[in-house]
Amino acid sequence: MTTPWTYRYAHRTKTLTSSTIRELLKLTQREKVISFAGGLPAPEIFPLGRFHEACNRILADSKAGQMALQYSPTEGYPPLRELIARHTTRYGVRAKPENVLITSGSQQALDLIGKLLINRGDRVLVEAPTYLGALQAFNVFGPDYVSLPVDDDGLQTETLEAVLKTGIKFMYLLPNFQNPSGVTMSRERREAVVALAEEHGVPIVEDDPYGQLRFEGEHLPPLLVLDRDNVRRDNGYDLGNVIYLSTFSKTLAPGLRLGWIVAPTEVIAKLVQLKQGADLHTSTFGQMVAYEVARGGFLDEHVQVIRRVYRERRDVMLDALEANFPPELGVSWTQPSGGLFLWLKLPVGMTARQLLEAAIAVDVAFVPGDAFFAEPGAGARFCRLNFSNAGPEQIREGIRRLGVAVRRLLAESAEEGDPVLALA
Amino acid sequence: MTTPWTYRYAHRTKTLTSSTIRELLKLTQREKVISFAGGLPAPEIFPLGRFHEACNRILADSKAGQMALQYSPTEGYPPLRELIARHTTRYGVRAKPENVLITSGSQQALDLIGKLLINRGDRVLVEAPTYLGALQAFNVFGPDYVSLPVDDDGLQTETLEAVLKTGIKFMYLLPNFQNPSGVTMSRERREAVVALAEEHGVPIVEDDPYGQLRFEGEHLPPLLVLDRDNVRRDNGYDLGNVIYLSTFSKTLAPGLRLGWIVAPTEVIAKLVQLKQGADLHTSTFGQMVAYEVARGGFLDEHVQVIRRVYRERRDVMLDALEANFPPELGVSWTQPSGGLFLWLKLPVGMTARQLLEAAIAVDVAFVPGDAFFAEPGAGARFCRLNFSNAGPEQIREGIRRLGVAVRRLLAESAEEGDPVLALA
Repeated sequence: MTTPWTYRYAHRTKTLTSSTIRELLKLTQREKVISFAGGLPAPEIFPLGRFHEACNRILADSKAGQMALQYSPTEGYPPLRELIARHTTRYGVRAKPENVLITSGSQQALDLIGKLLINRGDRVLVEAPTYLGALQAFNVFGPDYVSLPVDDDGLQTETLEAVLKTGIKFMYLLPNFQNPSGVTMSRERREAVVALAEEHGVPIVEDDPYGQLRFEGEHLPPLLVLDRDNVRRDNGYDLGNVIYLSTFSKTLAPGLRLGWIVAPTEVIAKLVQLKQGADLHTSTFGQMVAYEVARGGFLDEHVQVIRRVYRERRDVMLDALEANFPPELGVSWTQPSGGLFLWLKLPVGMTARQLLEAAIAVDVAFVPGDAFFAEPGAGARFCRLNFSNAGPEQIREGIRRLGVAVRRLLAESAEEGDPVLALA
Repeated sequence: MTTPWTYRYAHRTKTLTSSTIRELLKLTQREKVISFAGGLPAPEIFPLGRFHEACNRILADSKAGQMALQYSPTEGYPPLRELIARHTTRYGVRAKPENVLITSGSQQALDLIGKLLINRGDRVLVEAPTYLGALQAFNVFGPDYVSLPVDDDGLQTETLEAVLKTGIKFMYLLPNFQNPSGVTMSRERREAVVALAEEHGVPIVEDDPYGQLRFEGEHLPPLLVLDRDNVRRDNGYDLGNVIYLSTFSKTLAPGLRLGWIVAPTEVIAKLVQLKQGADLHTSTFGQMVAYEVARGGFLDEHVQVIRRVYRERRDVMLDALEANFPPELGVSWTQPSGGLFLWLKLPVGMTARQLLEAAIAVDVAFVPGDAFFAEPGAGARFCRLNFSNAGPEQIREGIRRLGVAVRRLLAESAEEGDPVLALA
């Protein structure tokens, strides 16, 4: 008897290739592995006490407790929507609670957006590299991707207008401390992107999980703000060209799975109907707990703590890279001014998969960069390194081991007479 | 400037028709309304104290607390998967934890199944009536529905084989205390359905949110069990024809959004990849809390409490219907032996939407039955009445008011000389 299961077209091909990141995370859950692989926050600074108080406050009160355990509106817990709307207005976005939809992590926002916008064969513009999870979410709906490269100032905009003229359903962009590269889109490019999007009627999906985690320099306005300020100053917020996503995963706790969408009310209304079909609503209890934790200025205070800790770890990683990868090795890397990741480029002829094998042999893990490109085969020389999860000592030791692994691969290549690597 | 948003094909049509139930729930959140509309559990029997203890246990322990707030595997929290696998084996299903996927409510299971199986135009067999939320989840993927009616013994199977021969992608069935009708599929029909599914290679999606809530009579084997026992006794559980869904929403608390899928490991592996793209994983904290609440036999104890309370309410509703709807009114209803709902049929010529308008005028709410049919226009004379949420006194009063409303509509029709209603 053969299996009775025949799958949807999308699952016969790219969607169901195994997720490199998730499989790696499993491998690296062994205690002794120094992992730069996941995008995991530092668990030792989770505000456990504040969470405990929040749960006590909710569950000791029978009315609040019953509400927390009952069904609730798809749109989200009203006080939490208000808190997020207020939080968003600090950047100049005139968001009302009606512009906010609470999602089960911002991963769900990507799924809902795919459901709302992508017909099979629609062309979606993404950065190269881009967030792997967005590709996973969108792939289910069968888009064709058009990739534009990023550099140290974010998305390269030279050819953007020409590409938009060829017909693009929407752009998916990560302007702040991009996952995986850690780079940030410059103010000039933000303005160019928003103006071109408006001119050509192409919506923007702006994914901003890390924007709060800036270590230095000036906060740059979200595309959402540039869109509102430049284009529809008088319209309140019922129209607009941008869907903005963010999350509590990098500021409070990823285990809650709490993200949000800020968008025109017309778009929110449609996303709400899709969310009904997807999971009815996000955990009432989780939303109430997050609200009790975040309220009264605690969120901002706690973000300061996270910034301090992650900035130190980024500095430790940059110093360790400097010390262990002298110029003659031919390795280069980005200098993120926030977020969780940096992006390493290996010498010509060495692939990240080769290095990963060597790294795992010495109990170090990272994610090979090719996972972050929509085009198969691209990005073979890149590695994504996370600096938020491991402590400073581990970061120093892990980078030292990576340096040894790179040297060993170079030496092996030289022995084998590889003409390119022998030069390095 | 026109809106830049153009939506996916499915959202231009049926998916984005407003959800009758959700809109009604909003209307009936006024305190004084007696609502038989939602599928809400009785909040006064939520085990708040047990939840409070569970949170304390997790958050007072820094290791458990950090785990609860961190990312976790897509498949689910391992002890919870084990608990559910054990729970499932009591009915004779040899499920291993690897056969269990934790979902964000069983609504998410429906979404993932749609993603996995439904290509646009695929024919999906559903009961008439069927669960509205399943239609909402599946509609996104553009199926064509084939409906077979239910009677007091559940799905009518006389024409099932002929229908299966026409090509059906899968059957979506609710064998126990079906939402909305409250009817249960007989043992004989279960065996017939499973045998025909096997013979014609048509998978079954068995949705069982209410199976635990049986008030009387003998527990009937899930289709999953009949499939396993009859067909592949020796295969362990890597194959199989059934995807089984259930949830904690009706036994512990819906606000947690915790459901699960039991399926062959091959199918689970594919669903896990789709869940990664949909929300990465379900709240770690929520899963750990549910495990701490359910463990050590508490779930079974608490189910006894729920059964007792809901049985009493069902009895009160049946008695009140008997008292307020004498035979000459021409109203009939089902006699559910478990679950949360019963299904009322109005006299010829009276629609549920007419009655709802009259009912809301006297502060009573229910859901018109047409929402539960895949075919537009079907089911206009049916009403779904929930008996789990309102207390006994409210149920008596609400049914009394409904009786008055029906008599008033009948009287008005008679005055207008309506030939059919005048007979009633």
